[in-house]
Amino acid sequence: MNKSVIADAGYGDDCPIAAFATVPGLSALTQIRCCGKGTLELAAKIFSAPQKLTEALGNTVIQGWIKKPAMPGQKIDQVLVSIFRAPKSYTGEDSLDISCHGGTAAGNEVMDALLSAGFRSALPGEFTFRAFLNGKLDLTRSESVMEIVSAKTGASCLHAVRRLSGELEKEINALKKKLVEVLTSAEIFLDYSEDEIGIDEDEDKGRLLGRELAQEVLLSLEKLLKTRQTQRLYQEGVLAVIAGRPNAGKSSLFNMILSEERSIVTEVPGTTRDWIEAWISIEGIPIRLADTAGLRDSNDKIEKIGVERSYNLFKSAGLILYLIDGTAGFTQEDKEILEAVETMPLILIWNKIDIIHIPDFMKNEGALGISAKTQEGLEELKSGIVRAIIKDIGLKTGACLGTNRQEKLVENAVFALKEALDLADRGEALDFIAPLLRESVNSLGEITGEVSTSDILEEMFSKFCVGK
Amino acid sequence: MNKSVIADAGYGDDCPIAAFATVPGLSALTQIRCCGKGTLELAAKIFSAPQKLTEALGNTVIQGWIKKPAMPGQKIDQVLVSIFRAPKSYTGEDSLDISCHGGTAAGNEVMDALLSAGFRSALPGEFTFRAFLNGKLDLTRSESVMEIVSAKTGASCLHAVRRLSGELEKEINALKKKLVEVLTSAEIFLDYSEDEIGIDEDEDKGRLLGRELAQEVLLSLEKLLKTRQTQRLYQEGVLAVIAGRPNAGKSSLFNMILSEERSIVTEVPGTTRDWIEAWISIEGIPIRLADTAGLRDSNDKIEKIGVERSYNLFKSAGLILYLIDGTAGFTQEDKEILEAVETMPLILIWNKIDIIHIPDFMKNEGALGISAKTQEGLEELKSGIVRAIIKDIGLKTGACLGTNRQEKLVENAVFALKEALDLADRGEALDFIAPLLRESVNSLGEITGEVSTSDILEEMFSKFCVGK
Repeated sequence: MNKSVIADAGYGDDCPIAAFATVPGLSALTQIRCCGKGTLELAAKIFSAPQKLTEALGNTVIQGWIKKPAMPGQKIDQVLVSIFRAPKSYTGEDSLDISCHGGTAAGNEVMDALLSAGFRSALPGEFTFRAFLNGKLDLTRSESVMEIVSAKTGASCLHAVRRLSGELEKEINALKKKLVEVLTSAEIFLDYSEDEIGIDEDEDKGRLLGRELAQEVLLSLEKLLKTRQTQRLYQEGVLAVIAGRPNAGKSSLFNMILSEERSIVTEVPGTTRDWIEAWISIEGIPIRLADTAGLRDSNDKIEKIGVERSYNLFKSAGLILYLIDGTAGFTQEDKEILEAVETMPLILIWNKIDIIHIPDFMKNEGALGISAKTQEGLEELKSGIVRAIIKDIGLKTGACLGTNRQEKLVENAVFALKEALDLADRGEALDFIAPLLRESVNSLGEITGEVSTSDILEEMFSKFCVGK
Repeated sequence: MNKSVIADAGYGDDCPIAAFATVPGLSALTQIRCCGKGTLELAAKIFSAPQKLTEALGNTVIQGWIKKPAMPGQKIDQVLVSIFRAPKSYTGEDSLDISCHGGTAAGNEVMDALLSAGFRSALPGEFTFRAFLNGKLDLTRSESVMEIVSAKTGASCLHAVRRLSGELEKEINALKKKLVEVLTSAEIFLDYSEDEIGIDEDEDKGRLLGRELAQEVLLSLEKLLKTRQTQRLYQEGVLAVIAGRPNAGKSSLFNMILSEERSIVTEVPGTTRDWIEAWISIEGIPIRLADTAGLRDSNDKIEKIGVERSYNLFKSAGLILYLIDGTAGFTQEDKEILEAVETMPLILIWNKIDIIHIPDFMKNEGALGISAKTQEGLEELKSGIVRAIIKDIGLKTGACLGTNRQEKLVENAVFALKEALDLADRGEALDFIAPLLRESVNSLGEITGEVSTSDILEEMFSKFCVGK
């Protein structure tokens, strides 16, 4: 593929490289990946059965010992080596997966031996980069690999897996093909008209057909753009903040949701916060649930700061769960607070329905009733949260955009295509329309990596983890 | 092997089991291990190419997709599956290594699918336990597997790897064989003497030969016992505490050692300490280096507590690095402090040799000179630390005891053998000697697992990590 494009990127060589493919730790195994020119011969230098290794068929596993390069008698670890022969490997090159014992010491010793034998440490994403270079994966699939690794929930993972299986690549290629058709017919007419042959009537017919097809592509691209929001939600999750007056039952609600849903990645940095939070998964959507200080006008200085910080947290929230103390009713204070946050996505929750029913005027406002004490209403609340977050559930099937890069390029394609259609509508000459169509095609090509520059590639792959 | 012995241990079945073999995290891959009866058929139920899987040869790798059991159309992840056919596998059973994408979500989804398909979660150490049951590993090798995983440094790992390659097993078996010889000849004479045949002269000769051999085994066992200390050192490391009067340069020495040696596992729990510490590796020995508060009689309450805690830390130290401020000289205070800790292993260090040479009376006390400022003397200090910790460097080669269990059993064997030799020296009848010899043989048999009880096995393997 486009090797020449990225030859200067530092990523583009076929040197033998090695990297940890698993996190070293108290586990049974540590896996090290190697690939590149001379991989088998280099590894054989530190392997107990060198000939067995160099002569092994692709897709086979052999057992043996890694030995110290300087002291061949000294065994480092007993390992399983999986051999993959070009082009039938992840990167398309000769490759090895070395399974050594877990812990930190064994893996480090084996890695040191590999580096002594002539491998160099792989750069972040270098394996996947080579897979892309060698035409094993297009860019959307390459990106999905990293999406899978960083997926927070099973649902986010499944979306990425669909991209890995080529769903988005196929969709983009299909749309691009249609657009190329439009462009080609436009260019034919352009050539003809340049030759000043009078085929005005045919041109009009061609324009009409092309316009329809272009319009169809535009609609598909716009539909695709909308999928990004849901995907981003699954990938990054959403901050849902529980708010309300003191004693509305916020902590009880927080604990009630937490005890039902298993909490997921606890990637909260070790900074002091004025609120409690936890990552949970509701219907596969990662939700960062936060419980704030009670909201109340106060003269107490420290409490005032807490309330102020709660308001700041609201600003970054994707959803506010506003809790009303049913036994106190909807107070003037509630009203004032709600006015302050009224522009935000919000769910009104009437607490303590085990004591006091939710009044009709609250129901009419869309409020949900719960009892943090008896757990009543929890299921409805969870559905309500999902509904409030995902506006367009219907977009769950079909190709979706997995990265901001893809989104940006689809936006470019849409922008150029819209402009092309505008010009066509205004009866402008094809001379002006064709370049816009070409720009749109190129943007789509960039999504799959058919068209790409070294800068973009390097920036993209360097965000990967090492070993990927 | 001794399946009947542990049939009731809960570990003894051949059910299909699955476990994570790597730590889930932000890495390229997650590896899941499966083994047991019907492994291939069960996994085929959730694999995109079931027939390819069930018909695959042993030691081959195939690629495919794991699918949702309930929704066969729904792909979960693209994986590599390594197939191992009984008896050529780690456990001796049909086994699979599934390499799925890294992160937490993909691995969890694949694991859920495996559990739905009929696998059960493996118990800690269950894979190695099965390997032991099926005669693939004796107990010393089984234990070494876990030693490797928890090794803190390369050196600790290499010692364990030597046990994994069977060094200790061979030594124990050789010693046991000799002891069985002694026992057999003793029992022959016992049978004869029971028959009351007069072969007193031959018996005496036999006793003499047996005595020599038993004495030889005893010496070897005692030598083996001594290896445990060094092994324990490599496994658990040692606490070295830097002490001295305020301003002796303790923090500078701490930083000087740290900047030279790469710090290893930082497994310091998140508790507040009154001292700074870091794990480093000097010549492969894991050393927990701690820097304490200055030692000085003080009326300041807080400082007093600090000093008191330093003294408490000394009690658990394996080595004290006592630093003397060369510019202040050896003070009365130094003398008093040293008298308080004189029973402990200690290195006297004369700091600031860039300003003041180490005086002869200090040299005669074995003091080492350093300059925390110019780094002079660091190499000598490091060698001094190693010398002070490892008393018997000569024991580095040959079989070594890797676990307390092994040590206990060798102690038992030594104890019984000594008593047998004592009785023999006192001319006691073989009736009394033979059972002691048998006890000694049995203890050695327990080390390799030839003789074992379900309780011991279960306790031993349950300390392993899951997936091992």
